[in-house]
Amino acid sequence: MRKISAIGIGAGDPEHLTVQAVRRLNETDVFFVLDKGSEKQDLVGLRQEILDRFVERPGYRVVRAPDPERDRTPDDYRKAVADWHRLRTDVYENMIASLGPDERGAFLVWGDPALYDSTLTLLDAVLARGNVEFEYDVVPGVSSVAALTARHRTTMNQIGRPVLVTTGRRLEAGWPADVDDVFVMLDAQCTFSRFADTGLEIYWGAYLGTPDELLLSGSLTADLASRIQEVRASARSRKGWIMDIYHLRRPVPPRL
Amino acid sequence: MRKISAIGIGAGDPEHLTVQAVRRLNETDVFFVLDKGSEKQDLVGLRQEILDRFVERPGYRVVRAPDPERDRTPDDYRKAVADWHRLRTDVYENMIASLGPDERGAFLVWGDPALYDSTLTLLDAVLARGNVEFEYDVVPGVSSVAALTARHRTTMNQIGRPVLVTTGRRLEAGWPADVDDVFVMLDAQCTFSRFADTGLEIYWGAYLGTPDELLLSGSLTADLASRIQEVRASARSRKGWIMDIYHLRRPVPPRL
Repeated sequence: MRKISAIGIGAGDPEHLTVQAVRRLNETDVFFVLDKGSEKQDLVGLRQEILDRFVERPGYRVVRAPDPERDRTPDDYRKAVADWHRLRTDVYENMIASLGPDERGAFLVWGDPALYDSTLTLLDAVLARGNVEFEYDVVPGVSSVAALTARHRTTMNQIGRPVLVTTGRRLEAGWPADVDDVFVMLDAQCTFSRFADTGLEIYWGAYLGTPDELLLSGSLTADLASRIQEVRASARSRKGWIMDIYHLRRPVPPRL
Repeated sequence: MRKISAIGIGAGDPEHLTVQAVRRLNETDVFFVLDKGSEKQDLVGLRQEILDRFVERPGYRVVRAPDPERDRTPDDYRKAVADWHRLRTDVYENMIASLGPDERGAFLVWGDPALYDSTLTLLDAVLARGNVEFEYDVVPGVSSVAALTARHRTTMNQIGRPVLVTTGRRLEAGWPADVDDVFVMLDAQCTFSRFADTGLEIYWGAYLGTPDELLLSGSLTADLASRIQEVRASARSRKGWIMDIYHLRRPVPPRL
């Protein structure tokens, strides 16, 4: 039986890799890499650096395929994502079908494979089609949320209170109900700006764990919101891409 | 200057340790261990196993102190936690004060230090008192949330949708607003049972990553809720303690 692993490789720092991930890398015959276009060559390079550094077993293969383009400004967000998933399912199916019958393949996933990543959904979609048989497992990783909080030395939650992880698109609809700590991913629109001067704190980070890492934090004033927007735009323009995440906190007075 | 690290050591499997965590372990002079009473000797043993396996540098010291008891059934949850934090701040302050002036100490934290753990809050509380000076950093880890989803091969979020991480106590108040995926920690009351037969899925795990790991999942029927309660009670009685977590999902029809 073919075996597939979805391996969480952390949020950018190669040293985020777990011992389990390093072990699995060394059991892998074929690494599957989706090429996301020129703007993310840095990430492709970082992934290769991880292989060069941690894989001691000789003779592994890397199979590349172009990642289908996604409509970034769709009228219907969920339909656009679904269309994109269908095209990617084809790509994943073809990649997995290229494995020998007893070989192990792996997808390297930034952060943790469970959080705003489509690899597991795509593996299930390929299995559901029934054209290729395989088993798969998941190696958990350090998420971008954990990387962000570690760098800012903050907690995700306040004492006994909940935490929401959401998207910029969702946050546009307003502050979520009944939560004081919100982590926002996939937000090219800097939605935090609309909450400036409302008593929040922000902890922002980009290119976490890499030499290009950027961190900004403080009371979310209009000034700080503008500064983050400027730093973000400037970095994005300089590097051609950006991956960032932020934490908005409404401080709850502690009774300590 | 004294240096302190809060090191995330993953959710139970020693192989959850990151390369960064292993490096930091080997730079540490003194490991601080809070003894939480006899019922958690398994965890103390697991922590020692991690040191034995990964620390190659000879001559490190382990400083132990009793963890102050916490009122588990308080009238005022936040006040009880605050009282407990104050007592623990004393313990942390004394431990850190025992470091030599240029030594590095470390607290090993299960999962990720940002999530429902008090180490960072306590370090900040000790710094705020101003009696001992030190610098500290945080090494992110694989959270119990990531460990749970990896074992069940599930995602945290559905496509483009938010995720809430909360406590059993909060969930007692009813299903949270505007979310379909909820991770529940610190729930000795099996609050999931009150949502039986309402169309949810449950993914439950205990002792994740250890040889005692227990996993149950499926449509959250009254039968499955009872079964999880029985398995949980039986394991807790057999081992004397339990650490578990679960994910409740309200499936959103995909447009794939």
